[in-house]
Amino acid sequence: MVLLIHHAVSPYCRKIRIALSEKKMLFVLKDEEPWNLSPDVYKLNPAGELPIFLSDGNVVAGNYAISEFLEDINHEVRLLPEDVKARAEVRRLTEWFDEKFYREVYRNIVMEKIHKRFAKGLAPDSRILKIGLNNLNFHLEYIDWLCERNNYLAGEDISLADITAAAHLSIIDYLGDVPWDGYRNAKVWYSKMKSRPSFKDILKDNIKGVLPAKHYADLDF
Amino acid sequence: MVLLIHHAVSPYCRKIRIALSEKKMLFVLKDEEPWNLSPDVYKLNPAGELPIFLSDGNVVAGNYAISEFLEDINHEVRLLPEDVKARAEVRRLTEWFDEKFYREVYRNIVMEKIHKRFAKGLAPDSRILKIGLNNLNFHLEYIDWLCERNNYLAGEDISLADITAAAHLSIIDYLGDVPWDGYRNAKVWYSKMKSRPSFKDILKDNIKGVLPAKHYADLDF
Repeated sequence: MVLLIHHAVSPYCRKIRIALSEKKMLFVLKDEEPWNLSPDVYKLNPAGELPIFLSDGNVVAGNYAISEFLEDINHEVRLLPEDVKARAEVRRLTEWFDEKFYREVYRNIVMEKIHKRFAKGLAPDSRILKIGLNNLNFHLEYIDWLCERNNYLAGEDISLADITAAAHLSIIDYLGDVPWDGYRNAKVWYSKMKSRPSFKDILKDNIKGVLPAKHYADLDF
Repeated sequence: MVLLIHHAVSPYCRKIRIALSEKKMLFVLKDEEPWNLSPDVYKLNPAGELPIFLSDGNVVAGNYAISEFLEDINHEVRLLPEDVKARAEVRRLTEWFDEKFYREVYRNIVMEKIHKRFAKGLAPDSRILKIGLNNLNFHLEYIDWLCERNNYLAGEDISLADITAAAHLSIIDYLGDVPWDGYRNAKVWYSKMKSRPSFKDILKDNIKGVLPAKHYADLDF
């Protein structure tokens, strides 16, 4: 059995939860608030970051190490293709969302609306929010362009790139900030992701003190 | 032959250059300034980020995709150990420097001193610099602690973790901002890294308009 220390507002934690489910690995979750970590977290991961994966006495810390570890230990369901060029494309897109989307969208929207409120009791800065919402359009356009060409972001099959992108977007969608209607292909893709059994728990997520957007859990949104 | 589009001020580009050299792969460099990218860069990597790796018609973009791609195609010199748990430890530390060190140190020191000057013609903010320099001590302490226990950061052998950490540190060291004398084990480790043939070119790097610290290229510093 796997124990995953996580928080619902972290896209990296959501990504690992979806990956574990896709790989049909059983796991239990332990909640930790990123703005109020318990000292135990630092003992397991001196970086003080989530997610942290525990299993059979092994501790694996961080998004990069855990996602590659899951691929290294579980070959039944592959989230990285066998072909090395195709793997590189999946990793390029994974980095796109983990780095670029995080920096340009997540930090400006979720950090403003959630972290700032719970960590510092402050209201979001509307100028920063506006930058994040503008950037979001560019990313949706790119997803739309990719999904016009393929079933999934990096090709015909689902991969770590889709899981990463959907994990990040699901938090913005919880807040009701994704303008799906302008991006038909992106919307079809996200609705496919939402319908997967691995997404079920994500759609039940509750960020304490923040109600989800009305359509958040709807498969037909 | 490999073409790597890079810039001397990017730790991610330095990391890939060192990794290519460790793997004894021949490559030529093409310079691009991060604050003044040519349109070609966007054609090769729509994220508009460096490094970009080109070889035999393949384009691989981004730090994560390239470093794992090199490991996938070249097994002669391994920068990730064979054992899956040991791989996870290398990747945990790699992420530490690529994410945490970058956010807490690089952004506050190098972005202030270099990017801000060349991209916007502005002087660094001394308060931000001070935060970066303070954070740097914490990271050096951690390196020191790791190197008291092992030859290299993740164990007895050199790995992607050492290459990543040394790539990041080398830029701060170019600026003369690393207080090596307080961290004996970290200094011994960095001096081992500096002495490797793969580091030779890094020590010849020149950031246009910024002179390197006097000791930058000295193996005995």
